[in-house]
Amino acid sequence: MPVNPTAATVSTTGPVKIVGTGLLGASIGLALTSVGLDVHLSDLSPTAQALARDLGAGRPFTADEPEPALVVVATPPDVTAAAVVAQLRQHPGAVVTDVASVKALVAAQVQAEAGGDAKRYVGSHPMAGRERSGAAAADADLFAGRPWVIVPGEESTPEAVRVVRALAVDLGAAPVTLGAQEHDDAVALVSHVPQLASSLVAARLHGAPESALGLSGQGLRDVTRIAASDAQLWSTILVGNAGPVGRALRALRSDVDDLISALDRAATHGPLTEGAVGPLARVIAAGNAGAARIPGKHGGAPNRYGEVAVLVPDAPGELGRLFSEVGEAGVNIEDLQLEHSAGQSVGLAVLSVVPAAAEPLEAELDRRGWRVVRR
Amino acid sequence: MPVNPTAATVSTTGPVKIVGTGLLGASIGLALTSVGLDVHLSDLSPTAQALARDLGAGRPFTADEPEPALVVVATPPDVTAAAVVAQLRQHPGAVVTDVASVKALVAAQVQAEAGGDAKRYVGSHPMAGRERSGAAAADADLFAGRPWVIVPGEESTPEAVRVVRALAVDLGAAPVTLGAQEHDDAVALVSHVPQLASSLVAARLHGAPESALGLSGQGLRDVTRIAASDAQLWSTILVGNAGPVGRALRALRSDVDDLISALDRAATHGPLTEGAVGPLARVIAAGNAGAARIPGKHGGAPNRYGEVAVLVPDAPGELGRLFSEVGEAGVNIEDLQLEHSAGQSVGLAVLSVVPAAAEPLEAELDRRGWRVVRR
Repeated sequence: MPVNPTAATVSTTGPVKIVGTGLLGASIGLALTSVGLDVHLSDLSPTAQALARDLGAGRPFTADEPEPALVVVATPPDVTAAAVVAQLRQHPGAVVTDVASVKALVAAQVQAEAGGDAKRYVGSHPMAGRERSGAAAADADLFAGRPWVIVPGEESTPEAVRVVRALAVDLGAAPVTLGAQEHDDAVALVSHVPQLASSLVAARLHGAPESALGLSGQGLRDVTRIAASDAQLWSTILVGNAGPVGRALRALRSDVDDLISALDRAATHGPLTEGAVGPLARVIAAGNAGAARIPGKHGGAPNRYGEVAVLVPDAPGELGRLFSEVGEAGVNIEDLQLEHSAGQSVGLAVLSVVPAAAEPLEAELDRRGWRVVRR
Repeated sequence: MPVNPTAATVSTTGPVKIVGTGLLGASIGLALTSVGLDVHLSDLSPTAQALARDLGAGRPFTADEPEPALVVVATPPDVTAAAVVAQLRQHPGAVVTDVASVKALVAAQVQAEAGGDAKRYVGSHPMAGRERSGAAAADADLFAGRPWVIVPGEESTPEAVRVVRALAVDLGAAPVTLGAQEHDDAVALVSHVPQLASSLVAARLHGAPESALGLSGQGLRDVTRIAASDAQLWSTILVGNAGPVGRALRALRSDVDDLISALDRAATHGPLTEGAVGPLARVIAAGNAGAARIPGKHGGAPNRYGEVAVLVPDAPGELGRLFSEVGEAGVNIEDLQLEHSAGQSVGLAVLSVVPAAAEPLEAELDRRGWRVVRR
């Protein structure tokens, strides 16, 4: 049965059990509860479970509950496979998925240990997260507009795949089907190696003199933002995806070797020595080309909102007048970026609004005499 | 004569000549012109010079002009030293500075070639820039609130140091005095290695499958933002600071070697093998510690503005009402960040305002019934 990736009619049914009530589990619970689903929570930590309940993510699972139609395992990745196998046994009628950020290792373990039950398992990985972890950081809107990778096992039934895809759609995410290895290779490049590079740069600052830190600018802050991530969680993720991350890191080290050779030449024989500037320019140019392939490069909320750009005189009250008039037009501003022009007498306000509101808002602001910039 | 870093009375006098009218040169010209100074522009490219003139950065230098009191060399770094020496000879009464992002190499060359004129040279490096280059991206406010490193040479006179420091203060920057080597070591850590790390990560995406790119998130976008930087400019900077960058990159490679060994163990013997998770956690924890030392980590405009945080109901018109009332209070909003809470029914608006306005604005918003968050 081919799965239709744009089907808008699919939807999760029956009680959903969530195992592990950290950031992802609690966020899923919040979102499903808000659309009226019956959500049961289970966590080894009674405190974590109580916190998720108090936030409105669902109610504690008990043995008396009706059987869940779907179990979502949202534990740390090193215990994910075992939890999936346990849930498949405990709930013989349920589809079981997980949200771990590595997939091949989990899939192999489930296939080895779950026997015939493996047909009710479908792996998944929502590409969403925050720097903060735990239920306290949960957000019902965490998955909106984000890719949600669906990784069917060799034995997964089409019905099980449909159920997990429906979960992603219900949470506002965009389901993407990948093989386990394909997924793991991809996240090594777009998530795991960037995490390590960020940590490697930040680690250099550990013993740096205070005067050096004082020269920090926005470039360093951007490169090192994710270096604040949790060391235990990330070590677990990285050993779970050791092959692909190791291969990507070897390719990176080969470039580092080239850079060091070039810099050594320049340091010894002067900046214009043969073989110095070339390798440096090659790596930076390859970076230019790679960076240009990243979708939604300008940050913010790339998929979720439309953008309306308006020139605003840089004077008290003008931004307020703009916002009031946007409000009068019945449009809610979801996010805002302000850019100042060289002349300082005017700023560019980029309003993020729900996509359907963008064009009508531009027309309305035109009508009211604002200078709307179509970009 | 000790230089007082907080002196507010110093100020640039006499005509200023700017050699090189790219982003930095044109931005300096714009800022000095706007405070009424006579600015003369000189660029090897007649088009670049005409563009800077048309933007209001000054008027073209001619031989008939009165002698400049200060010459600012803002050429690419590989021709900076030669330009400094030429300007010292051409204008025997002028103080000469440069704005190149490497300092030891320039200082050594000036000292070797300028003879007694070197006493009128003081190096400098404003820690400001943009991803875009050229006069078209110029901004009179580019340096406001940013550190401006002053690097006196061994022979620089106190008067020459005073003149260059006055320039930094006039442009709204915060002067910081460092030795040339100290500066070069610092920028290797906070600017040059981060640039290379960003390029190295982005370079991995060059041949990656489209499906991998589709999983890109904000973390990758942040790490690779500066990977879009100009390859020729950056190669020039890096060969000019080859020693310090090479040393920092060697330390980084040693960490990369540890990571690869750990990942190889995990890939071969499983994720829980001895010696796998430890080295990974060590690098990430060192990154945590390094990242925590970066001032103004949350981005935006760390030194320049005060912040006022207000809870805003997440409904059309509410943000407009807030902005209107801020306008009525006579306060201009310089920047804004919006954060949404988990519950989605309320957002936190963090307004950046001139520091003196922050407290009175908090009081006024309190009075008007807004929920002001003191952080």
